[in-house]
Amino acid sequence: MELAGLPAAQALAERVRPEIESLGSRGVTPRLAVVRAGARPDDLSYEKAIAKRFAAAGCEIRHAVLPEDCGQSALVREIALLDGDKTVHGILVLRPLPPQIDAARVASLVSPEKDVDGMNPASLGRILLGERDAFAPCTAEAVVALLDHYEIPLAGKRVTIVGRSAVVGRPLMALLLARDATVSVCHTKTADLACACHEADILVACAGRPGLVTAEHVGACCTVVDVGVNMVEGRLTGDVAAAARAKALNFSPVPGGVGALTGAVLLAHTVRAAGKAV
Amino acid sequence: MELAGLPAAQALAERVRPEIESLGSRGVTPRLAVVRAGARPDDLSYEKAIAKRFAAAGCEIRHAVLPEDCGQSALVREIALLDGDKTVHGILVLRPLPPQIDAARVASLVSPEKDVDGMNPASLGRILLGERDAFAPCTAEAVVALLDHYEIPLAGKRVTIVGRSAVVGRPLMALLLARDATVSVCHTKTADLACACHEADILVACAGRPGLVTAEHVGACCTVVDVGVNMVEGRLTGDVAAAARAKALNFSPVPGGVGALTGAVLLAHTVRAAGKAV
Repeated sequence: MELAGLPAAQALAERVRPEIESLGSRGVTPRLAVVRAGARPDDLSYEKAIAKRFAAAGCEIRHAVLPEDCGQSALVREIALLDGDKTVHGILVLRPLPPQIDAARVASLVSPEKDVDGMNPASLGRILLGERDAFAPCTAEAVVALLDHYEIPLAGKRVTIVGRSAVVGRPLMALLLARDATVSVCHTKTADLACACHEADILVACAGRPGLVTAEHVGACCTVVDVGVNMVEGRLTGDVAAAARAKALNFSPVPGGVGALTGAVLLAHTVRAAGKAV
Repeated sequence: MELAGLPAAQALAERVRPEIESLGSRGVTPRLAVVRAGARPDDLSYEKAIAKRFAAAGCEIRHAVLPEDCGQSALVREIALLDGDKTVHGILVLRPLPPQIDAARVASLVSPEKDVDGMNPASLGRILLGERDAFAPCTAEAVVALLDHYEIPLAGKRVTIVGRSAVVGRPLMALLLARDATVSVCHTKTADLACACHEADILVACAGRPGLVTAEHVGACCTVVDVGVNMVEGRLTGDVAAAARAKALNFSPVPGGVGALTGAVLLAHTVRAAGKAV
């Protein structure tokens, strides 16, 4: 079965609609501040996509744009203003930030209540402790939401994650553990990747290396979720090779899989933050 | 080989001695505040053991004792005072706290700079992100310190953790990932525990169930670290059965293994916190 992201995104948007209406009846419009330094094409296209999604759902985006050569203090001031602004419910800081910015310091500035993309270490720690109130990074949560939408069970299943980034692999490990999966994390230093992957019921590829997961990594009845976002000869490509996809029982495509769901998770997080703030 | 904790603890205490002397020459004595509510026998004996260790190293303990029926606000006030006191470098809150206390709220009160037992979610999140400045819970770090002392390599090795507590399993997963191990976490919901353990180069038992790890869980050339602390018929017993220990290439005893090292890690953390504060 192909695990397409679009139907899952639509279902999620549908699920948060009553809450948006309920907030609206109380005069509250869920509002996300998107903080951007510079104008990287990736950032602009992601910002455009979420602006469209938020508008369609009756929610708002506030754009906070700083020049690419902005100083640390200007960025800190902007985030502090948004964090203190009661009409802003969520804050998304587009990353990577320019090299002159101390990204770790910036990450801890967004208070956990508004940290809808789980960038603050305090949010991550709470996710690791299994606290349901905390926000996880949207891409990591989109993986879980995609599996849930297609009713693929997690409890007691062996899930192998290939990749340990701060925005996907590590928080996903925490989310899956909270869902009672037996979780393994592999990475570039893993000695025998195929052996470590072969026993998995669910294999999540989030290493950012095109074609890393091949047919020999995929065991019988395995669900393969591809989180890779790689540009290869001008085409968007995942981490999973075609032969691996063909062997999988279920697989998520790239594009049109996890990536198609991330914006809907961001919307759901913002609505939840707005609901808590009221 | 038996991985005895005492030599590792002595080596660690020896390693921090120059820093204690250097601080002393600047008139600074590393100082840990131990916050206790009530008088549980476990807490008293742990407090006594660390008081002895700190005294031997020329460091100080400040005891902050509240009645068992203390209110949330009294405990919050005490911790806030200690957190703001520049002569206190580390704060340890003995747990479990009495049932009327919101333990999660208390955990986030200790600022990460003084959080020498890694109870604040922000500390945990930083550990998960691989930040070296953050403090991990001492028991979790004692496991890594024990393996390091006996020069058992971690990078590229398959480490299976049995147990996912907030103080051992989860932070240990983060610490081992930062050390380039391929990490798997098993727990009560794991379908086939023996199968999940059998391939491990290093098996860490921290489930708190006596005899949980048996010989069938231990593969060839496996190092078994026992973090279990169970009282069975009045005797301190780990999670690893005798037959499993006998089959292991290396094993840590209970008592006298990881537990013997925890206090030295707490000392090292407090000295590090004092060094940063000066």
